[in-house]
This record gives sequence, C-alpha cells and structure tokens, in this order.
Amino acid sequence: MSQSSKLAVDAMGGDHAPDAIIAGLNIAAERQPRTFFLVFGDESRLQPLLAASKRLIGRYELRHCTEVVTGDMKPTVGLRLRDSSMRRAIDAVLVGEAQGVVSAGNTGALLALSKIVLKTLKGIDRPAMAAITPSAKGDVVMLDLGLNVVYDARNLVEFALMGTIFARIVLGLPAPSFGLLNIGSEEGKGDDTLRSAAATLRESPIAPQFHGFVEGHDIAAGTVDVVVTDGFTGNVALKTGEGALKLVGDLLRQVFSAGPFAKMGYLFARGALKRLKETLDPRRYNGAVLLGLNGVVVKSHGGADAEGFAHALDVAADMVTYDFNIRIAEALTEMDRAILSEDPVHHSHG
Amino acid sequence: MSQSSKLAVDAMGGDHAPDAIIAGLNIAAERQPRTFFLVFGDESRLQPLLAASKRLIGRYELRHCTEVVTGDMKPTVGLRLRDSSMRRAIDAVLVGEAQGVVSAGNTGALLALSKIVLKTLKGIDRPAMAAITPSAKGDVVMLDLGLNVVYDARNLVEFALMGTIFARIVLGLPAPSFGLLNIGSEEGKGDDTLRSAAATLRESPIAPQFHGFVEGHDIAAGTVDVVVTDGFTGNVALKTGEGALKLVGDLLRQVFSAGPFAKMGYLFARGALKRLKETLDPRRYNGAVLLGLNGVVVKSHGGADAEGFAHALDVAADMVTYDFNIRIAEALTEMDRAILSEDPVHHSHG
Repeated sequence: MSQSSKLAVDAMGGDHAPDAIIAGLNIAAERQPRTFFLVFGDESRLQPLLAASKRLIGRYELRHCTEVVTGDMKPTVGLRLRDSSMRRAIDAVLVGEAQGVVSAGNTGALLALSKIVLKTLKGIDRPAMAAITPSAKGDVVMLDLGLNVVYDARNLVEFALMGTIFARIVLGLPAPSFGLLNIGSEEGKGDDTLRSAAATLRESPIAPQFHGFVEGHDIAAGTVDVVVTDGFTGNVALKTGEGALKLVGDLLRQVFSAGPFAKMGYLFARGALKRLKETLDPRRYNGAVLLGLNGVVVKSHGGADAEGFAHALDVAADMVTYDFNIRIAEALTEMDRAILSEDPVHHSHG
Repeated sequence: MSQSSKLAVDAMGGDHAPDAIIAGLNIAAERQPRTFFLVFGDESRLQPLLAASKRLIGRYELRHCTEVVTGDMKPTVGLRLRDSSMRRAIDAVLVGEAQGVVSAGNTGALLALSKIVLKTLKGIDRPAMAAITPSAKGDVVMLDLGLNVVYDARNLVEFALMGTIFARIVLGLPAPSFGLLNIGSEEGKGDDTLRSAAATLRESPIAPQFHGFVEGHDIAAGTVDVVVTDGFTGNVALKTGEGALKLVGDLLRQVFSAGPFAKMGYLFARGALKRLKETLDPRRYNGAVLLGLNGVVVKSHGGADAEGFAHALDVAADMVTYDFNIRIAEALTEMDRAILSEDPVHHSHG
C-alpha cells in the first residue's frame, strides 16, 4: 500500500504561473488521491484559482508569500528574498511540513536554494540532476545534467547508485541496467576518472546491473535504463538529443504541408503521427530531479503547461511515496560495506 | 579556376571494400574531373573492378599492397604492418605523391598512423577531427570529435580557427559563424578552460565570426555554422544527435506501417518523406576529417556505400583544391600576430 505524501508547491514560478501551476495541481490531484499540497504564493491571485477547483477541496493549504523569484533574476539575488514562494516552499521541506518541493521557477535559484537550505544527504558528496528521456526501448534516466562540471570517480559511482534507485521508483524497473557515458565501449576508453569509476562499479553491489561504457547513440537506442555521466557532458547530450528531435519534428511539419499529396498523406496518417508525437511529447519528460538532498526537489520546465507541471508533481509524489532517500541511504551503506571490505588500504589501518 | 589534385585511396578498408570503394571512385571521378587517384590494395581483386569502369580510364594508378589493416585489428597491431593499403596511402601523402588520403578502414589505426607519419602542422598543438551534421539552417561543422580528451584553451582556439576555415572551404560560406559548446550561453558558464578560450577568441582576428557560447540544442537549430568543443563532449554530442535522428526514423517507419490508413498516408506523402530522408541522409554527412596534419586525411564511415565513399572523396578533393593547409598557416600567422601584439607579457621581453 502506498504512503500518503505532502508536496510543497511554488505556485509563482514559470512562464505560465500561477494559472498553469494550479491547473497542473488539478490534474495531479486526481491521479494522486493520497497527496496533500502546500501551495506557496500570492494569496490574492491564487485564492480565486484554487476556489474554482472542486477537485482540490480539502486537498491543499494556501500559504501567502509576498515575494517572487523571477525567471530573469540572478540566482544570487533570488537567494536573498526571504519571503519568496520558492524559498518558503523549500523551507517547508526543511522543517518537515512537506517531503518534497516542486517549482517551475528560476533554475539557478532553485538549485542553489535547495542545496543551501536542504543540504546534501549524509554519505553523498555531491547532489546530481536527473531527467527522463525517450528511447527505442522505453524511458531512460540520465544524470548528471549540469550540477557537476567538476567531479571525480566517487561522484560518478554515487550518480550510478542514485540513478538506478530513481529508475526503480519512477520507471518501476526492478533492477535497472546502467552504463557510463564514454567515447567508446572498450574498457580502455576515456580518462582515468571514468576508468576508475568503472573499476569501482564492477566490484560494487550494483555490478550485476552495470553494462559498462556506453556511447552517445546508446541513449536513444535504450541500450541501458540509466545513463551516468558528469554534469557538463550530460547537459550537452540531453540538449543535443532534444534539439535533434525538434529538428525532425519541424521538418515533418514542413514535409506534410509541402503540397496537396503530402497534405492528403497527413490526413490519412494523422492518427499514427499523433501517436508518434505522444511518444516523444516533451511534457511526458518534464521534471528534472535534484537527487542527493535531504528532501525531494523537482524542477519543472519553466515553459511547462498544466499537463507538464502535473507530470513533475507525479515524479515528486512517486519519490516521496516510495522513500527515495531511505533507499539511497540503504544502498550507500551496502556500497560502503562492499568497497571497504575489499580495500586493503582501509584494512591496514585496523 | 580550381587546381587539380591527387588523392591516395585505401581501397581495402571498410565493410564493403573493395567493391564499394571502387564504385565510389567511379561516382567521384565524374564529379571531380580534375582529380587523379592513387589506388592502394590487392591488385588481383582491384584490377578487375577498375578495368570494368570506363569512367576511370587514365584517372588512376593502382599500387599493389600485400597487407590489410582489418576493422577488428588493434590499432597498435595495424601500425606495424608496413605494406598495408592504409599505410602506403598515407605514405604517398608524406612523400608528396598525393595531397590527401581517404580511407574507410580501422579508425584508430588511421588516426594513429596519420599522426605518426604526417605529423602535426607547424603552429598547431593538436590535430582535431571534424564532421558535418544537419541542422534547421543547413549543414553545421562540429569539432573535435574524439581525438582530444585532454585539451587546453589554446587547443579550443586552434579548433575554432581550423573549423571556420574548413566550413569556408567545404560549405562554401564566406565568413562562417562559430560558437563554443557549453552548458549555458551566459559569459560566466563553464570551466576556466572554456572561459579562457572565449576571452582569447573575443580578441582574435576571427572575433567577428564568434557567436559566444552555444548549448546542445543549438547544434540542430543551426545557431552557428561551426560548433567548437573538446573531443569527449563532441564525440558524445555527435553520436547522441545521430541516435536521436535514428530513433525518430525508426518510429516513423513503425508509424507508417501501423494500419491501412497509415499505409495510405505513406503512399500520398511518399515524395515529401523521401525529401526528408534525403535531407537527413547519413551518406551526405559521411567523412570525418582530420584537421591539423601535414596533408589532408578523410575517414569514411566503415559501413559507407559507394555514394557515401564518393562524398568522403569530394570533401578531400575540396580541401586539397582550396589549399586548406595553406589557409590554416595564414590564419595562424594572423592569429599569433594579433595575440602577441596584445600581450603585455611578450612586450616586456623586447
């Protein structure tokens, strides 16, 4: 039986706030009958929207905030606003009123505030950002996506551990496979950091799930369920893949309006093309997740509509319900025991 | 008026050698009336193929070689074969019998042999691999694609210089724009190496062409004509983009065979879809180029067919005809003069 969960919602962040946020709550409220929402933002704007939604009756509590971290604000400026909807929503997780926070607001500010306020989970050196992307064999988790431009082998091992548990919970896979992103699949490829991380993972408790090195084309091929990489490479790869999908989408639109035959073809193939569009729908992949903090933090895309924001709420609710952070702590203990017991350097200190 | 050029061709490399290689020569010979081909490989297999092609009469010279660097050979093993078609073709460039070499064979061996035999161009610290990829605004050059996992700011500046000249020659653009691949477009993004390279480029003779930092999605959007990055990131990004394009292609095929309506749609839209396929045809983008060596080196994809190999020959011929390496030397002189004259440290030594 699933647990109930409380989510703190920054209702003022994103291009379409607060309307799309409350409309998203509405959608999520139906899909998540056991979630309660703490809604942070400008009362005068939120009250009418919330009151208009029968589905939300008894499912939320509105907390008035006087400030907003805007999208174009420098993160350092956003950090200083003590009564912003973003800050207050994160604070609610800190004090235990909510287990997770969802915001479509300023990415830099959300990341910085979450790290400062919630702090890194015990045993995790650096948090990572993860997202879900489409592949030929179903959804694929990718991390890190930009938090860690500087990193070491231990960080990559922790990303692998957090990524596989995230995939287990959010994609529902019992033992997700994972690979380290590299420029070749042979053992000797890549730099020392990658080879050292691979060596540790091959001796770790998650070794049976470790596929080894994977390459760029393996992401969309779905070779593994989780693609592990540093923040620079992951950020570039995710955006490159999104860009390529958008290019084909745009070309397809041109192609099907290129003449009477093509338009006729579109009419016949419309149903099938719609299914293709749904498969690759960016809204299905909305919600980058900050892993490794004391609390669940989900960043919705700033341009997300109600359906997209509802998806981000779904991801947060799943992570809370299935105790993501407790699973991480367990896996870390197991990992450290395995690595310590095999490490002669540590033994010699006994 | 274009110059005549001599290309050395490794006729034994690649999955479909030598048939696809000679068929590719045939296609290229018609498109390049002023190119002469030195063909390296097993005489007994090549003689009948060459003799059957009327178009190649008087356009080639066959050089018999007793050995072949196979695709599954370790590069270190391939390097030791003194009479391989690959080695002999590269040697022809070294001694000046040809100005460029094209091979569809073992990538690792070709890169290693080319670097060892031809050596790096004066003034260039490290060679780079470049390729052409499709975008919404036409072809885009990307480099480096895997040679330089370790690199510094000066290397990125040299890649920018070589990439823009490559784009001028192969894409025919008078002043190609270029960007440095990063995880954000703001000036402060990325690591010290990226920021230092950007600072140098902003003061360089190619500053008017410098767009600043670009992100992953800018590749397929065609924001710039040349995307400059390190070998690790470039390799991952190129393969990620190719993988995403392949995913949509596969999904489209499924979609259009998913029922009678979809099949009917395909029949009507066939012409338009064919144009889409041609736009994204991997054969149009065949031919990764090694920039910064004393001679032109083009690596065709191992699985390339005749049309793909002919395209790689076209790229090589263009680079020879329009004196790629002389343009690089000129640009380096100009670059060094500009940077030196602005560098107070150098002045104090006067």
